[in-house]
Amino acid sequence: MDTYNFAAGPAALPKPVVEAAKAGLENWKGSGQSVMEIPFTGDEFAQIHEEAVATLRLLLDIPSDYHILLLQGGAYGQFSILPMNLLRGRQKADYAVTGHWSRRAADEAEKYCSVSIAASGFKSGFSEIPDWSEWSLDHQAAYCHITTNETAEGVQFKELPDTGRVPLVADVTSDFLTEPMDISRFGAIYASAQKNAGTAGLTIVIVKENLLGQALPITPSVFDYGRLVANASKVNTPPVWAIFIAGLVFKWILSEGGLAEMAYRNRCKAKSLYAAIDDSGFYRCSVAEKVRSSVSVCFQLPDSGLEEVFLSEAQKKGLLNLKGHSATGGIRASLYNAVSEEAVTALVRFMDRFAVQHKYTHLSSFN
Amino acid sequence: MDTYNFAAGPAALPKPVVEAAKAGLENWKGSGQSVMEIPFTGDEFAQIHEEAVATLRLLLDIPSDYHILLLQGGAYGQFSILPMNLLRGRQKADYAVTGHWSRRAADEAEKYCSVSIAASGFKSGFSEIPDWSEWSLDHQAAYCHITTNETAEGVQFKELPDTGRVPLVADVTSDFLTEPMDISRFGAIYASAQKNAGTAGLTIVIVKENLLGQALPITPSVFDYGRLVANASKVNTPPVWAIFIAGLVFKWILSEGGLAEMAYRNRCKAKSLYAAIDDSGFYRCSVAEKVRSSVSVCFQLPDSGLEEVFLSEAQKKGLLNLKGHSATGGIRASLYNAVSEEAVTALVRFMDRFAVQHKYTHLSSFN
Repeated sequence: MDTYNFAAGPAALPKPVVEAAKAGLENWKGSGQSVMEIPFTGDEFAQIHEEAVATLRLLLDIPSDYHILLLQGGAYGQFSILPMNLLRGRQKADYAVTGHWSRRAADEAEKYCSVSIAASGFKSGFSEIPDWSEWSLDHQAAYCHITTNETAEGVQFKELPDTGRVPLVADVTSDFLTEPMDISRFGAIYASAQKNAGTAGLTIVIVKENLLGQALPITPSVFDYGRLVANASKVNTPPVWAIFIAGLVFKWILSEGGLAEMAYRNRCKAKSLYAAIDDSGFYRCSVAEKVRSSVSVCFQLPDSGLEEVFLSEAQKKGLLNLKGHSATGGIRASLYNAVSEEAVTALVRFMDRFAVQHKYTHLSSFN
Repeated sequence: MDTYNFAAGPAALPKPVVEAAKAGLENWKGSGQSVMEIPFTGDEFAQIHEEAVATLRLLLDIPSDYHILLLQGGAYGQFSILPMNLLRGRQKADYAVTGHWSRRAADEAEKYCSVSIAASGFKSGFSEIPDWSEWSLDHQAAYCHITTNETAEGVQFKELPDTGRVPLVADVTSDFLTEPMDISRFGAIYASAQKNAGTAGLTIVIVKENLLGQALPITPSVFDYGRLVANASKVNTPPVWAIFIAGLVFKWILSEGGLAEMAYRNRCKAKSLYAAIDDSGFYRCSVAEKVRSSVSVCFQLPDSGLEEVFLSEAQKKGLLNLKGHSATGGIRASLYNAVSEEAVTALVRFMDRFAVQHKYTHLSSFN
């Protein structure tokens, strides 16, 4: 049976990437070793590392005054590490709270500065992103932080706020590389790799040159952006295998047509899944249409008691990892780059049939 | 041609581990995904994680009041993270400086507390570890830190200092799992995985229960030992692949006879290599015999101008990654668990021949 992985991360990898990874466990380019065994200071790894960085720069069309850092600790690690590096002598930072992950980012930042909530989706139950007119930006803030896609709620920024002279910084973990983005709009972005850029254990930071060099004295050396830039991300041993896999993913995206093509595919996938939800008279997505995520499609069944049945029947059909985030419940399909249109078609077909089977039994309880 | 990898880290992995890793890139236990793609919150990963931890506990006979944490950032990351977690309201920590890495650990700790140098190998050019009688321990220190094996100098603790009621903590990265160790002597130990416990991107911390719960407020959540314990090392997405590989390494060690067997093999390998150096009248190891490392064998040629010739001829014979650490120069052979006796025999044979060829030309310059 074919299986389709809708996991939120670690998530499905493109099949050609998993195939290409196998060469990493053989004699790598005549070195006599697998990729896991080559020194990080040697030529073989330098090539893997430089190719990964160069391909990423090409994919995102990253301006030359932005540095690409490859490090460890995850996006959650950056919730601390970013303020340590980017407060630059200021005492305040703005955070837009649009869901579970931006809330955590703001909470963590309070360890290092005074956090001001520039905007909050709380009033709408995190089904909307407040209109720019409702944002309260602090022009003394070191930066303004957003989470471009909230995986637990399924809410995604479709436009970026104008933060004036305050640098915009973003956790882009869950929609990184799913569409083109204008890096020049940001002071810094960061992403864990395990959704659209490979395997867990690698974090990518892209930061503008002019924000560097003022890290707090408490910043660990291995997480000091300036030191990472000066040492080409090799302050200490980098996560060699995860960088190898990320490089394979970047090349795969390029070979498929780049980020415009990814965006086209992701829009098509999301469109057909949201249509299946909206047209069903059974499933419900509470997120406002204009901010519905194209990668984290979250929805409810008419009766939460049906969720286990839905998940278990889906699994029998090879439709895996559809359980919603523990903070929000419900059903979630993550439609990252490696999730095929075929996978979405199979999910929609299953959902249609499931709705027909359960509609009349449960519709009465649907409010 | 057979190749032999003497790299300091990332280092050689046992061949059966690299073979077993290939199953991780296939349909893992019927999950439909590779190990890199399974959710970290699911049963498949729980099994990988729990088996790795249980096997490590068995190998090291870890007492039940010690926790095993699997995290990211490397040992260099722990140079910061350990003081953040273990200062416990105290302002001071003792550090023994016995080489390059303990020096760095002490420097980094100064970001968080007052560092007192309990002992220094400086006077001997780091060829000796000061006698216990020369150590100056501060009984108010939060802990006393040592680096059990210095990879740049080739100096290794053969006995542990008695630090009384002050917890002994250690960077054990380079001799971790190369011999049995009495965990109960320590408050905490930590090790990067890429030498004897797998692939880069995983850090192992073993910490005593009674030292937890007093992390500094600036400690990032993902590196807070107490939170890591409470969340079974899953505060955020763990480095799934690196944990999978570590588990394979632990099982391999167990299947080979455990740490006593590793220690026996490592002693034999080191003995034959040091004998080849000492008996040559050509190579020179400046480390005092009683603290010579059994895993990082560092030596000099009579003329440093010969080093490039030595390294290049060695490489032609498949003897790889023998260059000394950049801070110390010379030649270094790392004899970790995965380096076979056959590899050491091949190296000794090469060194004997090289010495004969160059002895009379260069002996005059040997002082």
